[in-house]
Amino acid sequence: METETAVGPDAYDELLDRYERYTSVQSAGGVLSWDQQVTMPEGGTPARTKQQSVLSSMGHELITDDRIGELLTELTERELADERAAVVREIRRTHERAASVPQDLVEDISETASEALTAWEEAKRADDFDQFAPYLETHVELKREYAAEIDPDRDPYAVLMEEYEPCLSLHRVESILESVRERLVPLIEEIRQSDTTLAVDSFDGEFPVDDQEQLARETLDILGFDWDRGRLDTSTHPFTSGNQFDTRITTRFDETDPLGALGSTIHEFGHAQYCLGLPQAEWGTPLGESRDLSVHESQSRLWENHVGRSRSFWEMFLPKMKEQFPGVEDVSVTDAYQAANQVYEDNLIRVEADELTYHLHVLVRFEIERDLVNGKLEAENVPKVWNDKCEQYLGIRPETDAKGCLQDIHWSHGNFGYFPTYTLGSVMAAQLYAAADRDIENLSSRLTDGDFNPLHEWLSTNVHQYGARFETNDLVKEATGEEFTADRFLEYVENKYSKLYDLWEGSSRGSPSVSITRQWGDFATQGETEIRPRCRWL
Amino acid sequence: METETAVGPDAYDELLDRYERYTSVQSAGGVLSWDQQVTMPEGGTPARTKQQSVLSSMGHELITDDRIGELLTELTERELADERAAVVREIRRTHERAASVPQDLVEDISETASEALTAWEEAKRADDFDQFAPYLETHVELKREYAAEIDPDRDPYAVLMEEYEPCLSLHRVESILESVRERLVPLIEEIRQSDTTLAVDSFDGEFPVDDQEQLARETLDILGFDWDRGRLDTSTHPFTSGNQFDTRITTRFDETDPLGALGSTIHEFGHAQYCLGLPQAEWGTPLGESRDLSVHESQSRLWENHVGRSRSFWEMFLPKMKEQFPGVEDVSVTDAYQAANQVYEDNLIRVEADELTYHLHVLVRFEIERDLVNGKLEAENVPKVWNDKCEQYLGIRPETDAKGCLQDIHWSHGNFGYFPTYTLGSVMAAQLYAAADRDIENLSSRLTDGDFNPLHEWLSTNVHQYGARFETNDLVKEATGEEFTADRFLEYVENKYSKLYDLWEGSSRGSPSVSITRQWGDFATQGETEIRPRCRWL
Repeated sequence: METETAVGPDAYDELLDRYERYTSVQSAGGVLSWDQQVTMPEGGTPARTKQQSVLSSMGHELITDDRIGELLTELTERELADERAAVVREIRRTHERAASVPQDLVEDISETASEALTAWEEAKRADDFDQFAPYLETHVELKREYAAEIDPDRDPYAVLMEEYEPCLSLHRVESILESVRERLVPLIEEIRQSDTTLAVDSFDGEFPVDDQEQLARETLDILGFDWDRGRLDTSTHPFTSGNQFDTRITTRFDETDPLGALGSTIHEFGHAQYCLGLPQAEWGTPLGESRDLSVHESQSRLWENHVGRSRSFWEMFLPKMKEQFPGVEDVSVTDAYQAANQVYEDNLIRVEADELTYHLHVLVRFEIERDLVNGKLEAENVPKVWNDKCEQYLGIRPETDAKGCLQDIHWSHGNFGYFPTYTLGSVMAAQLYAAADRDIENLSSRLTDGDFNPLHEWLSTNVHQYGARFETNDLVKEATGEEFTADRFLEYVENKYSKLYDLWEGSSRGSPSVSITRQWGDFATQGETEIRPRCRWL
Repeated sequence: METETAVGPDAYDELLDRYERYTSVQSAGGVLSWDQQVTMPEGGTPARTKQQSVLSSMGHELITDDRIGELLTELTERELADERAAVVREIRRTHERAASVPQDLVEDISETASEALTAWEEAKRADDFDQFAPYLETHVELKREYAAEIDPDRDPYAVLMEEYEPCLSLHRVESILESVRERLVPLIEEIRQSDTTLAVDSFDGEFPVDDQEQLARETLDILGFDWDRGRLDTSTHPFTSGNQFDTRITTRFDETDPLGALGSTIHEFGHAQYCLGLPQAEWGTPLGESRDLSVHESQSRLWENHVGRSRSFWEMFLPKMKEQFPGVEDVSVTDAYQAANQVYEDNLIRVEADELTYHLHVLVRFEIERDLVNGKLEAENVPKVWNDKCEQYLGIRPETDAKGCLQDIHWSHGNFGYFPTYTLGSVMAAQLYAAADRDIENLSSRLTDGDFNPLHEWLSTNVHQYGARFETNDLVKEATGEEFTADRFLEYVENKYSKLYDLWEGSSRGSPSVSITRQWGDFATQGETEIRPRCRWL
């Protein structure tokens, strides 16, 4: 191999130039997408659809350009410094994936998605899965083709999942998800059996939207949001979109549920901090991009759950909430903490689930979509399998498809492999938070003091600043010293919920083998981040 | 010539496909530009600059593609139906102009503009024209080169003006502007000499911004703005941006000047109606694009001046204003009408000028920039010439360059040929309004009744629906039955201001030779539409 000094710097520079052009087009599309969801008047759709479709096809042309292939080949011959090698690795992955799928197939999928969306909306309204089944079947077929174009020799579901998790193996994902299922199913059953009742009505009442918005802005102030590089708006589904120069959060308000908006604002804040923490000098290169969905979700869940649902946070935050809403004057920190952490025993809807049951909703979907893609399950049988799994994992059975297998939009988009990233994010959040808690002195009392800087610095140093330099497991290992596993997450939920629901005594599981950490909090994902292409519009 | 049936429909269709792609990229850039001025956090600039630069270069590549040249050549051989011929004519013009200028020169100009903008800001702050002069000189040189690339045999100023007025001859523009100057200079002098004082303090006081915004929204409701296809926001400089599916107005509010926001809202409403009136089925073709800046400005000025400053409008509107602002309870319709139509005798600033003196501000700039480009004037001599002309046309001499030749941003962008479009727009507005007044029964009482539909329909039928099908003069002729001249405008201002300032008796000009029309109103361009590329982002 030649050493790097012998590299025509031109090959690397030209590759970066081309990739920056690609990034610019993609991120312009992101601005248009934000606009469509936040500010665009309804009538604007026809022109917007054309604009997006042209930007998307231009982005595709740019990244699949033969010249990029040539440059990558040329650079393969060279010995590159670590960062450059990472840049080349990431661009290669994106290029090869995009180039291996024929544009016709991409368009077929996009057309199917458009028809399937309408069919799904109608099927959900009519509570009739049969109306949607043929579209789901078509999506499965097309996505199997898609996976085969990328690599005909590998498990197609593994290939599809790489759309969102380009560098996590299916083996690792399955191992994490299965550990979660094995521990959470009995834990939730114990909670169902428990006599303990939490103060779940602490925030009953009416909370005017304007006041909630003011509180959301104050919350972002407290957490340290950089308004010179960001915005807060409202949209039907909360999401975050942006880059290290300009990242925008949305939330939504429900007059009867102040914790909903609060949780989604803090969740999106976590996403935003990741975007804003990416190195500015690397914009337009993979080093200036977020790693993948699980890492992104780890940032939102860390803030939402480990900060926003912690007792420490509520000690600091409750007085501020009382200033805005004098009606909650009598609520204690314990009341607030319990209200923010109740486990719902009869909830069938994923996006309304609590921190624990949420992951079993994800597991139902993961197991079904994996079997669909691998040909082990026919679309028409989805409702029965769905309902059986719900009963088995959550102890409740949906009475309708609308509240069962038709509840989520993802499959109408043909997005197989997306659901697991939600749980992976929570699991990773727990692992990262445990490491931060180890590294930062008195982290929980810092939260109570409203001093979030040490945590910001830890996340910036250990996660944000790297962009996509490390592959996912390596990033987690660099940050925490351990492989990415479900261990810390399981310790965390077991400790927290055993305490909340008094499960130590008489528990069939006995007391946990791990020491109780100081951290307890956590929220339900009431407002989830919307579906987006990997690593960019989060 | 072959007949159209013999045309490979493919050539025409391929041309349209390619042009639609170009339009999509351009209009995506327009959304990004709106966002930058209205919603983008300040820190977002670096990424936005990259996005815009890439979209701009992709747009350039698309429109200059050799294949478009080939298709145009192929289509030249065919006999096309009128509409198709117009489409080909317009695309050819855009293609040839873009293709004839080397990309290096475009980039040089863009770089100079960026440096010149900073220099202009600094020079204006320091009130020192010498700091800006070298940049102006460079701009003139580059723009002369630019014009020569397009056509070395024609007057370079005429060529540059075509950036904004692609199908008006310099000869016609000069003839219109000179007629305006010849009649307005003595008219303004007479007003200065007149003893009549108008009720200029009718709207003195404080008008809270929130209330003004509510009134602006109500005004748009009254005028018939389609909120499903539009928005109202605030920005530093009011502007309109959009297309037939989604058109957005901005305005700005000053607590002491409710007429300012009102005038700019109505002005931008006129621009918006033009955008929204373009045929939806023709989006992405020249038939779905506005004609040029003078026609666009004619629509804004028509609503701002001929409607918004008319006595008829104020009869309907004043009671609504009093509901929002009870403090103006005692203002009469005559007071309001006079306040909205006063002529400022000591104003040096174009954007704060009234309906009459405004055009002399434009003439000063037009004559200077034409001489600069034609090599008859050196940049360093601009301040003296500017001040002399102001004295000659307006009777006042600027004491500083900041309030003189450094007041406008346009020359820092290198936009020579833009200024005349403001006056052309007013002149055309008067000609169109006179024709509408002739065609619509009782137009002025319709305005008083708040019934704007006949006027909307007239404008839609005679202007909006055509897009860029007709060249400018033909469009005016189709709509009004006359060539585009200054006649109707001069009649209008002479009648209106002679009445307002009691100029009939003892006037050196005697009474006007034309009959007095029923129409009198008009406003100052307090918030002008910002500088934009031709025909797209208005």
